[in-house]
Amino acid sequence: MKRRAFLTTATVGAAAASLATPALSQDTRRWRLVSAWPRNLPGPGIAAQMLADRITTLSGGRIEVELFAAGEIVPGPGVFDAVGEGTADIYHAVPAYWGSKSKGILLFGSQPLGLTANEQHGWMLHGGGQELYDEMYARFNLKPFLCGNSGPQWAGWFRNEITSVDDIRGLKYRTTGLNSEVMSKLGVAVEAMSGPAMFQALQSGALDAGEFIGPWSDSALGLQQVAPYYYDNGVGEPSSAEECAINLETWNALEDDLKGAVQMAAESLYNVVHTEYNTKHALALRELVASGTQVRQWPEEIIIAMGNAMGEVLEEMRNDSDELVARITESFIEYRELMAEYQPHAEAAQLASRSLDFTYAR
Amino acid sequence: MKRRAFLTTATVGAAAASLATPALSQDTRRWRLVSAWPRNLPGPGIAAQMLADRITTLSGGRIEVELFAAGEIVPGPGVFDAVGEGTADIYHAVPAYWGSKSKGILLFGSQPLGLTANEQHGWMLHGGGQELYDEMYARFNLKPFLCGNSGPQWAGWFRNEITSVDDIRGLKYRTTGLNSEVMSKLGVAVEAMSGPAMFQALQSGALDAGEFIGPWSDSALGLQQVAPYYYDNGVGEPSSAEECAINLETWNALEDDLKGAVQMAAESLYNVVHTEYNTKHALALRELVASGTQVRQWPEEIIIAMGNAMGEVLEEMRNDSDELVARITESFIEYRELMAEYQPHAEAAQLASRSLDFTYAR
Repeated sequence: MKRRAFLTTATVGAAAASLATPALSQDTRRWRLVSAWPRNLPGPGIAAQMLADRITTLSGGRIEVELFAAGEIVPGPGVFDAVGEGTADIYHAVPAYWGSKSKGILLFGSQPLGLTANEQHGWMLHGGGQELYDEMYARFNLKPFLCGNSGPQWAGWFRNEITSVDDIRGLKYRTTGLNSEVMSKLGVAVEAMSGPAMFQALQSGALDAGEFIGPWSDSALGLQQVAPYYYDNGVGEPSSAEECAINLETWNALEDDLKGAVQMAAESLYNVVHTEYNTKHALALRELVASGTQVRQWPEEIIIAMGNAMGEVLEEMRNDSDELVARITESFIEYRELMAEYQPHAEAAQLASRSLDFTYAR
Repeated sequence: MKRRAFLTTATVGAAAASLATPALSQDTRRWRLVSAWPRNLPGPGIAAQMLADRITTLSGGRIEVELFAAGEIVPGPGVFDAVGEGTADIYHAVPAYWGSKSKGILLFGSQPLGLTANEQHGWMLHGGGQELYDEMYARFNLKPFLCGNSGPQWAGWFRNEITSVDDIRGLKYRTTGLNSEVMSKLGVAVEAMSGPAMFQALQSGALDAGEFIGPWSDSALGLQQVAPYYYDNGVGEPSSAEECAINLETWNALEDDLKGAVQMAAESLYNVVHTEYNTKHALALRELVASGTQVRQWPEEIIIAMGNAMGEVLEEMRNDSDELVARITESFIEYRELMAEYQPHAEAAQLASRSLDFTYAR
């Protein structure tokens, strides 16, 4: 009788718990996602919210992710440390922000004359990039994934036309990441500031020129109002990856299926984000041109000088005293070489062919 | 006492049920995925297995997907009808196979001188393509998603060199989809056959030439042994999408979070598959060249003639008696026009710049 009473009490307790809340509630984690962006900023701000929602959905609610915009728990530049230290569980940002942690990190975001958005994802998924990315971020107690890409950047907004390397020498120009080093080698006076700060700086003359992303995001900042010339083909960033990273202990404690859910939330977002940028950049460019923006081609002489300068930067990085930076650099160079060999037979040729003279339906 | 006894029995029963099996087992669906491919065929066969596994993982096991390769339940060409009729729950194939159902379906797969892999995904996700894809497949009791892309195809393997449109007139050539119509308009004798059948046909002279996919998949079929010339830049298929489709009643009966899991399984796979093809094509091309394959450029004269022929095909399709085919065609033309305008400022320019003469690290 005593044994029966014990069993009954125990099962009633278990049943009550399972009735009071959804079946899996005992497993529910609540994650704080800290973003480097204002809430719902077109592009990355929206992507951060989508990441939070996708993890919640794909985990079947076992991980409930709440987004905190830049400044709500920590400022945007603080998200990397905040997650490493466990103040938050996951962040959404770009690798370009963490060059002061290690220069090797910059290669996971964007490389002058480097990889397109697809190639960057290919390096991660099939070229050994993810293992190196993991190894680097583990130093900071983080597990990283790429989860978006804003695609090919524009060389940006200029108050005056330029045609040669001489024209950009001494120019006060806003850019980020490895492109800052390349442009500095060309004599450009590189200025670091947030994208939104560019409007005022171009208007006042504190900047002569600057690049942010591309037509969709740039026109949202109103940059067309303060600089008339818009240069395309920003080879300083052939693509620019967005990333998320999870506190490493939090990651290691996840069951395998939840690790899968988080990984696939990030993977599924990469192309959704990338194709949204492409589509909206193209639509925004039409509006900019209709409103009087003067589109110009980035001069070939400058592209070649940038390629040579990036060659020097990579030579320095492959000889870096940090052997992990050297290995990341070698891996990048190898994958980029493979793609540079292949693309003239593939997408580069396809895109060039589309510009030939034939009568396609309009 | 009676009331207490009743309560106890009921709760014990519920608790016993929840202990006997995992918490969500009462919700578990078992889905039969029928694939159009041999089990683990490099490329699409592997992708079909990954789709099955991802749905199982992302649904938290609430949908358990078992894969059946071509011929195990139905032959490859039968998967579309089998899922529509409910013999199976989901299939993995390519839109190119269903031109006999409606010519409009072919545009969801590949279009001569049309969209790259990313642009194709962009049309679906951000250009109104998915709604049209849904509307067309609903006629066949299916809910479709794109879930991969084999990227830019090669023009293929030729027993003799060609330089002009005259050289391809009367040529017995294997291809598929809308490229068959375009090549027929140029006087090519298009032959329909499976990829694996090409080896024997090229060897015997039943074919003069033929295209399958690209270096990775083509060399797995041994085509380099039976035709010496390999023409790149297969503008007949600038990309080639892979798809899955679910029985529409099965889809409609899913809870929203499971719909999300299935959608994101497909979305997450698109770029994983696409970048795997890119990487492995590039590696396989190196091996082919080292083994003596002669790589040739697809002649510009033929590309222009193909573009004009595709213009005629699209004029026919936009005037199709099926108004849905006409709407799909207009939507495709509009999105392709947007991308054709934008890419010379973006990825086309970036890829071309990478071929300029500068010293990048090697």
